[in-house]
Amino acid sequence: MKRIATSFCFLLVFVLSIQAQQALWQGPEIVSPEIHPDNTVTFRLFAPNAALVELSGDFITDEMLNNSDPGNRNIKMEKGNDGLWTYTTPSPLTPELYSYSMIVDGLRINDPSNVYLNRDIATLSNYFIISGDYADLYKVRNVPHGSVIKQWYDSPTLGTKRRVSIYTPPGYEKGDREYPVLYLLHGMGGDEEAWLSLGRADRIMDNLIAEGRAEPMIVVMTNGNVDQTAAPGESDLGLYTPTTRLPHTMDGSFETAFPDIVNFVEENYRVKKEKGSRAIAGLSMGGFHSMQISKEYPELFDYVGLFSAAVDRGDKSIPMYNNVEEKLAVQFANAPRLYWIGIGKDDFLFDENVAYRKLLDSKRYPYEYVQTPDGHIWKNWRIYLSEFVPRLFK
Amino acid sequence: MKRIATSFCFLLVFVLSIQAQQALWQGPEIVSPEIHPDNTVTFRLFAPNAALVELSGDFITDEMLNNSDPGNRNIKMEKGNDGLWTYTTPSPLTPELYSYSMIVDGLRINDPSNVYLNRDIATLSNYFIISGDYADLYKVRNVPHGSVIKQWYDSPTLGTKRRVSIYTPPGYEKGDREYPVLYLLHGMGGDEEAWLSLGRADRIMDNLIAEGRAEPMIVVMTNGNVDQTAAPGESDLGLYTPTTRLPHTMDGSFETAFPDIVNFVEENYRVKKEKGSRAIAGLSMGGFHSMQISKEYPELFDYVGLFSAAVDRGDKSIPMYNNVEEKLAVQFANAPRLYWIGIGKDDFLFDENVAYRKLLDSKRYPYEYVQTPDGHIWKNWRIYLSEFVPRLFK
Repeated sequence: MKRIATSFCFLLVFVLSIQAQQALWQGPEIVSPEIHPDNTVTFRLFAPNAALVELSGDFITDEMLNNSDPGNRNIKMEKGNDGLWTYTTPSPLTPELYSYSMIVDGLRINDPSNVYLNRDIATLSNYFIISGDYADLYKVRNVPHGSVIKQWYDSPTLGTKRRVSIYTPPGYEKGDREYPVLYLLHGMGGDEEAWLSLGRADRIMDNLIAEGRAEPMIVVMTNGNVDQTAAPGESDLGLYTPTTRLPHTMDGSFETAFPDIVNFVEENYRVKKEKGSRAIAGLSMGGFHSMQISKEYPELFDYVGLFSAAVDRGDKSIPMYNNVEEKLAVQFANAPRLYWIGIGKDDFLFDENVAYRKLLDSKRYPYEYVQTPDGHIWKNWRIYLSEFVPRLFK
Repeated sequence: MKRIATSFCFLLVFVLSIQAQQALWQGPEIVSPEIHPDNTVTFRLFAPNAALVELSGDFITDEMLNNSDPGNRNIKMEKGNDGLWTYTTPSPLTPELYSYSMIVDGLRINDPSNVYLNRDIATLSNYFIISGDYADLYKVRNVPHGSVIKQWYDSPTLGTKRRVSIYTPPGYEKGDREYPVLYLLHGMGGDEEAWLSLGRADRIMDNLIAEGRAEPMIVVMTNGNVDQTAAPGESDLGLYTPTTRLPHTMDGSFETAFPDIVNFVEENYRVKKEKGSRAIAGLSMGGFHSMQISKEYPELFDYVGLFSAAVDRGDKSIPMYNNVEEKLAVQFANAPRLYWIGIGKDDFLFDENVAYRKLLDSKRYPYEYVQTPDGHIWKNWRIYLSEFVPRLFK
């Protein structure tokens, strides 16, 4: 009994020290966000000294706005006598992965009760998931899980080592089966982490494969900034503030060096090495890269996905971006099995995609087109990935 | 030229929207922390409406304290007329990975100018690194990098799939060399992410190997909470608040199931399968686990590391924790090549480690002992890993 008592004592010391720490941080124990059974959500912040606490988030609809400033999309939270600020949505939220922050007397902060954050370039935001529809693909479910590998490969073309994130499907470790490969490219300001964090790519793959909707495949998430060997904090540049202002993101360098990563994957992973087993897709700048790469190496990819693609932003004085129509003619002479375009109706690149589709139409090049609501946002890119992947390698 | 203009315009839209976002968050562009050439550090927060902004951090020494409350270890920052609060350390900081937070009118927040965070159980803190000494091992340097794999393995003993983090050394992907394996265990409240984030294990391994101080090896970072299949957010439990209050962390279950992960690694990785090529080490509860596992399976490990180990906290009514002396006698009949004990002088487990060493001394069991300043903190565990790893497999 003495030993048991000692053991409990030991646990108690740990637990008390943690509780003390939490108490120091937050006052009383706070649950935030709390997702109720009907999918309304309550946010809470203990801030007895604050004069105004607001919520900022992509779940906020016009009906929720409770201030009189039409330029202010933030919601005021309500202060209780106990110093606890709360806000409960007036109606259930629809299924989605939502991001939010709190604003305390003008200072934007993350919710101290929610440890789950995504980084979008230099901005950290909390997130939560309302189940259902597409969002069920974004959750970790009780299904077989693939592996995620962060590793460095050699790019002889660029003369550097570069970091890449690779998803291998459940079962990859066993047997001698060879898998097809999807190359998945991020947008401007992103890096090899973006599709895993904001894009939930590993969860989407696990779930689509478990549902029998997608072929087991390897997904290769590159870093499309040739001036950056790795995501912020993962290179010898140290702990700097991420920025979009990276040179050489759209000057042809990434596309020229792209065979380096294909060679690395095909030499180091158990993959099928044929056009019918390779796909490339990307969002925004990554959609631009995917368009350029797939036409530049027409023998490489039988599946191409342009998600909200910055499809016509290439500086034509750069050889890679010149003579696009001629190169497309070569590509479509032996057309990809799937050339897939998705964009939101409110996207600032919408008109550009209309023009690009007109070009494809005028040449009678086959493609598929998906139009969604909303604009240039991750919600759409998660949907596009969820729709594109089931179409691959079948 | 029109195309170039369009391209610039496109970049501008992106950059402006990001700047607007940053401006919304922070007011003017803020650099925080700024590490000066002499290793003094300036912290900054734009909070014009705040009445008091404090800093909390493990870099704070008595000489920095600038308030009169002896119970308050926080530093007051100074408010400028522009709403910018600043604090500069009065003297250079010694090399280390430091963690900190800011406290705005009593509300603890993360520094919005620093995207680098570590999670310790349910607490996120910003961090920065002052170069030199051990801290040079914690940085990403321009050296060959190993890979980090997050994957799931089957534990027949526990009847579940479980998540594990695995480091493979540079060059693992090529050739047919077989590698030794270090099993590296976390403490109470930790999980399979802890040694990578707070412990910087992958950086330490890369750098020690690059310096020729460590043998290339595989490092297997398990989840020692058998009631938790994966780190918070990585299992189908969803996005819950992490806690130390996990059952079955010290009831013998983890130790009983440990051969499952050894079998998985030896079946799926190119490793040497002999006692002389296996090491096990852990911190706090993980040190306890390492002690128990290494004596329970005396044929498995030739290298054992007990870092600030909770070495005598086992409930003796549990068979795994009973008859420890008899089991140690078996283990030391064919003694491990290295039995390594490290603890800080201020650790609350210090006396317990003194008693354990007395037991080993009384039996003349060989071990090595390293005593450091400070207590039960990650600074010590990073140092212990940095000292232990160069001793392995030689």
